[in-house]
Amino acid sequence: MQLNDPAVWTARFRAVREHSLALAAPLSDEDCGAQSMPDASPIKWHLAHTTWFFETFILEAMERAFQPFHPAFRVLFNSYYNGVGEKHPRPQRGLLTRPPMAQVRAYRANVDDRIAALIGSGLDGEARARLAALLTLGLQHEQQHQELMLTDVKHLLAQNGLYPGYLAGPLPRALPGAPPGWVHFEGGVTAVGYEGDGFCFDNELPSHRQFVEPFDIASRLVTNGEFLAFVEAGGYRDAAPWLAEGWDWVCTQGLDKPLYWQRDEHGNWLEFTLLGLQPLDLERPLAHVSLFEADAYAHWAGARLPTEAEWEHAARSAGTLPGTPPSLPHPGGDAEEDGHEAGLLTQMFDHCWQWTSSSYTPYPGFRPAAGAIGEYNGKFMVNQYVLRGSSCATPAGHARASYRNFFPAGARWQFTGIRLAR
Amino acid sequence: MQLNDPAVWTARFRAVREHSLALAAPLSDEDCGAQSMPDASPIKWHLAHTTWFFETFILEAMERAFQPFHPAFRVLFNSYYNGVGEKHPRPQRGLLTRPPMAQVRAYRANVDDRIAALIGSGLDGEARARLAALLTLGLQHEQQHQELMLTDVKHLLAQNGLYPGYLAGPLPRALPGAPPGWVHFEGGVTAVGYEGDGFCFDNELPSHRQFVEPFDIASRLVTNGEFLAFVEAGGYRDAAPWLAEGWDWVCTQGLDKPLYWQRDEHGNWLEFTLLGLQPLDLERPLAHVSLFEADAYAHWAGARLPTEAEWEHAARSAGTLPGTPPSLPHPGGDAEEDGHEAGLLTQMFDHCWQWTSSSYTPYPGFRPAAGAIGEYNGKFMVNQYVLRGSSCATPAGHARASYRNFFPAGARWQFTGIRLAR
Amino acid sequence: MQLNDPAVWTARFRAVREHSLALAAPLSDEDCGAQSMPDASPIKWHLAHTTWFFETFILEAMERAFQPFHPAFRVLFNSYYNGVGEKHPRPQRGLLTRPPMAQVRAYRANVDDRIAALIGSGLDGEARARLAALLTLGLQHEQQHQELMLTDVKHLLAQNGLYPGYLAGPLPRALPGAPPGWVHFEGGVTAVGYEGDGFCFDNELPSHRQFVEPFDIASRLVTNGEFLAFVEAGGYRDAAPWLAEGWDWVCTQGLDKPLYWQRDEHGNWLEFTLLGLQPLDLERPLAHVSLFEADAYAHWAGARLPTEAEWEHAARSAGTLPGTPPSLPHPGGDAEEDGHEAGLLTQMFDHCWQWTSSSYTPYPGFRPAAGAIGEYNGKFMVNQYVLRGSSCATPAGHARASYRNFFPAGARWQFTGIRLAR
Amino acid sequence: MQLNDPAVWTARFRAVREHSLALAAPLSDEDCGAQSMPDASPIKWHLAHTTWFFETFILEAMERAFQPFHPAFRVLFNSYYNGVGEKHPRPQRGLLTRPPMAQVRAYRANVDDRIAALIGSGLDGEARARLAALLTLGLQHEQQHQELMLTDVKHLLAQNGLYPGYLAGPLPRALPGAPPGWVHFEGGVTAVGYEGDGFCFDNELPSHRQFVEPFDIASRLVTNGEFLAFVEAGGYRDAAPWLAEGWDWVCTQGLDKPLYWQRDEHGNWLEFTLLGLQPLDLERPLAHVSLFEADAYAHWAGARLPTEAEWEHAARSAGTLPGTPPSLPHPGGDAEEDGHEAGLLTQMFDHCWQWTSSSYTPYPGFRPAAGAIGEYNGKFMVNQYVLRGSSCATPAGHARASYRNFFPAGARWQFTGIRLAR
Repeated sequence: MQLNDPAVWTARFRAVREHSLALAAPLSDEDCGAQSMPDASPIKWHLAHTTWFFETFILEAMERAFQPFHPAFRVLFNSYYNGVGEKHPRPQRGLLTRPPMAQVRAYRANVDDRIAALIGSGLDGEARARLAALLTLGLQHEQQHQELMLTDVKHLLAQNGLYPGYLAGPLPRALPGAPPGWVHFEGGVTAVGYEGDGFCFDNELPSHRQFVEPFDIASRLVTNGEFLAFVEAGGYRDAAPWLAEGWDWVCTQGLDKPLYWQRDEHGNWLEFTLLGLQPLDLERPLAHVSLFEADAYAHWAGARLPTEAEWEHAARSAGTLPGTPPSLPHPGGDAEEDGHEAGLLTQMFDHCWQWTSSSYTPYPGFRPAAGAIGEYNGKFMVNQYVLRGSSCATPAGHARASYRNFFPAGARWQFTGIRLAR
Repeated sequence: MQLNDPAVWTARFRAVREHSLALAAPLSDEDCGAQSMPDASPIKWHLAHTTWFFETFILEAMERAFQPFHPAFRVLFNSYYNGVGEKHPRPQRGLLTRPPMAQVRAYRANVDDRIAALIGSGLDGEARARLAALLTLGLQHEQQHQELMLTDVKHLLAQNGLYPGYLAGPLPRALPGAPPGWVHFEGGVTAVGYEGDGFCFDNELPSHRQFVEPFDIASRLVTNGEFLAFVEAGGYRDAAPWLAEGWDWVCTQGLDKPLYWQRDEHGNWLEFTLLGLQPLDLERPLAHVSLFEADAYAHWAGARLPTEAEWEHAARSAGTLPGTPPSLPHPGGDAEEDGHEAGLLTQMFDHCWQWTSSSYTPYPGFRPAAGAIGEYNGKFMVNQYVLRGSSCATPAGHARASYRNFFPAGARWQFTGIRLAR
Repeated sequence: MQLNDPAVWTARFRAVREHSLALAAPLSDEDCGAQSMPDASPIKWHLAHTTWFFETFILEAMERAFQPFHPAFRVLFNSYYNGVGEKHPRPQRGLLTRPPMAQVRAYRANVDDRIAALIGSGLDGEARARLAALLTLGLQHEQQHQELMLTDVKHLLAQNGLYPGYLAGPLPRALPGAPPGWVHFEGGVTAVGYEGDGFCFDNELPSHRQFVEPFDIASRLVTNGEFLAFVEAGGYRDAAPWLAEGWDWVCTQGLDKPLYWQRDEHGNWLEFTLLGLQPLDLERPLAHVSLFEADAYAHWAGARLPTEAEWEHAARSAGTLPGTPPSLPHPGGDAEEDGHEAGLLTQMFDHCWQWTSSSYTPYPGFRPAAGAIGEYNGKFMVNQYVLRGSSCATPAGHARASYRNFFPAGARWQFTGIRLAR
Repeated sequence: MQLNDPAVWTARFRAVREHSLALAAPLSDEDCGAQSMPDASPIKWHLAHTTWFFETFILEAMERAFQPFHPAFRVLFNSYYNGVGEKHPRPQRGLLTRPPMAQVRAYRANVDDRIAALIGSGLDGEARARLAALLTLGLQHEQQHQELMLTDVKHLLAQNGLYPGYLAGPLPRALPGAPPGWVHFEGGVTAVGYEGDGFCFDNELPSHRQFVEPFDIASRLVTNGEFLAFVEAGGYRDAAPWLAEGWDWVCTQGLDKPLYWQRDEHGNWLEFTLLGLQPLDLERPLAHVSLFEADAYAHWAGARLPTEAEWEHAARSAGTLPGTPPSLPHPGGDAEEDGHEAGLLTQMFDHCWQWTSSSYTPYPGFRPAAGAIGEYNGKFMVNQYVLRGSSCATPAGHARASYRNFFPAGARWQFTGIRLAR
């Protein structure tokens, strides 16, 4: 991760930054300002906050004669870093009609140019290493927000009775998948956590040993058709397969199907997608279920969810790797199947994040970074569950076998699906 | 209210409709889409809903071969008319990034042209009378929303740490006002309710008799300076002058000042206005207090709020009339003082709506219109309090002595002030 | 109200005080401690608070060398008097398992004896007058709590799946009532408020003039059978007759019938009463409806609720007087019909409190008492509606034509019914 | 666990059952009926529910000609078993003034006699084994409720401004403890879960292997004095050491100290105990903190919480065993120190449950029992954290090294303390 070639670094930096703008391109300024729920953020806010991250953690620390682009942005676009100071209230991000999109674009351009200047400024070795590390983190951070931009705008558009698509056009039907199978692993002491010399987040470290009992893991994800059988068998009306808190969640919210499913006046099942309302494709991997739903389905199916150690052990053993996500973020579309070479384990990446039964806790010896940036991951390690793999909305190059995504047990607006274990 | 001269009606119609667009002119599309709280609506929604009112209650009823501009708008822009059918949820109006502003403008233009065509279409007498009545109601309705556009956008901009002004420029200082005095009325049986042959809302009818005991009413509104004395005397820290529910409201929300007041780092009092943050002008009439605050202030000052019958009796006796609201909606600025001729009662109109102690109830013999349009006023006659007069944000020509505005006791985002009685 | 004969006053005092204990007699200590909702209080708390009232407002003010019975009781049993100081939180009154009932009985006996000693202590004229006024207020206050004891214990027992009766035994069936009729009044300027030289609450003063337009008022209360027709016609499923806030209240709480109605497994209608579950008696006056339900029923029936001025005018004109409430508090049972002599207006008292459309506001010239005791009535004069008459649970001798009971629009646990007007 | 000697089993059964009544002995019927919060239950409810458990899961299944003691009790005293049917709402357990305590005592006596008769009824081998298993589970269940009776009544009494003690008398001061030390363990593959042939809960099974990295664990619990240093250093005012959700919890609830701490008017620290308010004993182990507080303290102190595997590995390695809890349930009083023989690890049992960083998840191969009784543990395995050890309120004989207690991260009313690890 040395910053040896400024041109290479600048190109990589600009490519990631431009991809964020490309994601916003199909949207109007109005679309970019709205916030559909406290957990989601406006597109404009994502564009500004990712810029704030570079300005606050790189320019403010390393730029000579640093002047903020706008003094109020430090508060407006701080997400959750108490060490940086005050924050605009999260549920009110959608009220920030100012700065306008044009000014946020100017903010991005300004910070991008200053970062490029810093990259090319002939820093000494120690500073170059520090810049490389922070740049890498900032770009990985931006990629995380790129996925959130897609899930957040999908949630926003789904609240609108017009059901507008983020993009236009028909959604290609998925090909019928193979019948599901079980892949057996013998267990034993296995290594968990990142071991290479590339980038990883602090929550993937340190690599350490865990003992895994022998287990089976499903060869592919649960499909819409399989989950529909659960729905039609009364899965949302019988407490038996549910965790107690999950059943409360179902009853309190009156739920009876996954987040984006609905029926038309003829009783046909539809799914809201980034291409608008579409017929429910029974062959595609199921998406947008909570851990509660994933766990209930697994119980109903006589199985369980994998632990994160099992998942990582299987992924490493099988040698599956992230591929290229589909051009349109919809699970199971036209992504190249990962792991085909390994024979058995498919859809580990690029389709849906996969709920595990593992709560999000620090690995033994975990040590967050010093200062405000140490708030990145560690302080969220309670009442969240780990998801593994990656989704159709994850930017290419972002995922890896040791990656730990995490959300509360009731979250449904991410591309979250189910891989069974037993 | 006969529709004798189509050209006159068309001109009047177009003038009111254009004023709504003029109010939106200083705002970006982003500004027009956001909703700061469930009680407020986005500017875009106001523009669409007022158009929906004409389309639903006039075009749909009277236009030959009526086709809706867009079939989904019937639901999206229905405010609260159960008789019309389903409604988009009120707290989620800010999520309607589609239709975009441009389409709402097109919607307005389309409906305006069709209304103009209908006006000029040579209807027979009965239909002309019906059209005149509905047009008049629709324009009065639009004027009510014009005031809400200003109060709602003020509330939205106040949530933004940048404190942007709706308009730019300094706010003229108010001239020192006269010391307050009491105007005495003898009481007796008095007529309450609208009696002329112009327009009024159904809630102003029928004119009826009420007995009013002798009373005094203040010659002008309470000023910022007078209310500041209450604040600084600990008015928000002592339960004694407050209604029990008002005191709960203060404590639960941790309140210690009117809605838009704040102090800078030097302790100076500022007020957020449509021109942005401004020094608090002690001479101006106080605005943006709830009934709870108005009542507590009155008790603290050894007085009380007037009833709506007292207010109307005083207004009629003194012959005060609405004038021209200030060019910038800020209470007490450069409006022509009403009632100067009558000598004593001033600021009855054009500055701030004035809380009365009267709950909003039907007048004896009240009869709402048949059909969905009968939901306009009558169904809100519980747990609301009547405000009289008009404010700096009320469109010219909209107010009259019998006008009954109404809000819940805790509402503060309107231009609501205090006139004392005893 | 002079305190001329101490023996008479002592006897009156002891009689009212003993009635409270008699009301608690059918209940166990366990029954007396529980609180079913924040609006209701435990029986034990009522017994202690009414004692606290005498101790705080009479003994503390007038007893030589006053020592509190227990220093902590000043806080524990203060209901809402900010002028007295701190208060135990209202929703947690049911957690006060200490002091035990036995100690509360001892508290009552102690305060009773000290009050009796004070009555007989040969006070001078001014002090005697003051004592007489406070004693009278204290006893009226205790009578108000006697009614609350019955409504609160009814609510408590209704939460228990065993549906225990407060008393045992069958409920006598009501005789078929007369068909309802309308009684006409001419209106005009009428006096409202208390005018005699006996006791009244401050909220009944001063007597003043109101103008009442001609009106009709129903000759009797709405019966269970009449309201059942509304229920069965879908009254709780159609927004049309409801106030907007009432309809929200129905939908949010999923309501479809009056508070204590239910159906058995055969579909028969039952009503929970102080004698346990009983078949719904179609001839009895309907009880336990909110203002929202009363108003919706009236609209559905093509009528409206009376104003409090209309009600009082009718009651005075007809000369109806409170009688003897039924021996078992259930509306419409065996109470002597009031007003029979006057021919037409019946059930004005002793059956159910009658919702009016009048919000609870101060009469012109209203002046609460000085000091903490002035918090008795005045501070509740917002967002409450006036009920007139009296109920089967009102102690004999407590009601009068000018009496103003008041509750929020959604309250249902009192014996509240409907008299129509038009 | 064979039921070979009915007399032994009957005696064991009666001894546990009588201990529950002994715990209720210092309390009045009033004390036994109240519920201080939804998470806590009334003593009477505990006494009835534990009886319901024997009646429902043993008598109903095994008694010839089973008749319920009272048909309504099946619903009233069902805690959370959906498989058994309806349940009285948990937050309303305090409203069950009927059945009275006397009837609950009769219920206990009746079920006890029928259970004793069943034990002595000469069942065949398979039925005897089944009865032995269910009896054992029922008694362990009752012991769990015995601990809850103490924590729930403590919480109830703490809400009362009289601060009554559950028992009277002074609390003995703890002796100054040893300075804390670290005990080192080498780690490796270790067995986790119950392995003996006695009783354990299903959540302790199956015994399985886990890999534990080398770690240190504190030789004793954190004391009140040590935690006071955190409080006085501003621990509740600085976000830095807190988990994000923990900091929200602190801010939303306005917390600044452990649950039962308070200061008197001179600033002295007091703690509410089962003996009433007492001076805070700085030498005793800290109790009544949430996982959030435990984790924040650990971060502040430069340490962390142990995992449950570490805790169990340490406990087994050191051979520490539960002893006899103190005669008065207060942490760290006069309990015999466990583990003294082993030299280093003390206070593993009998003082305070110890928060671990492990979420409550199924062990690999976990299989809940069939039928409703399978709801005992498994369905709670989400968003809860494991506590290990036992407390001063745990009945003698109930704890073991593999025992998994669990509560949500914000729970504070149990005797929950902190053992550090690193």
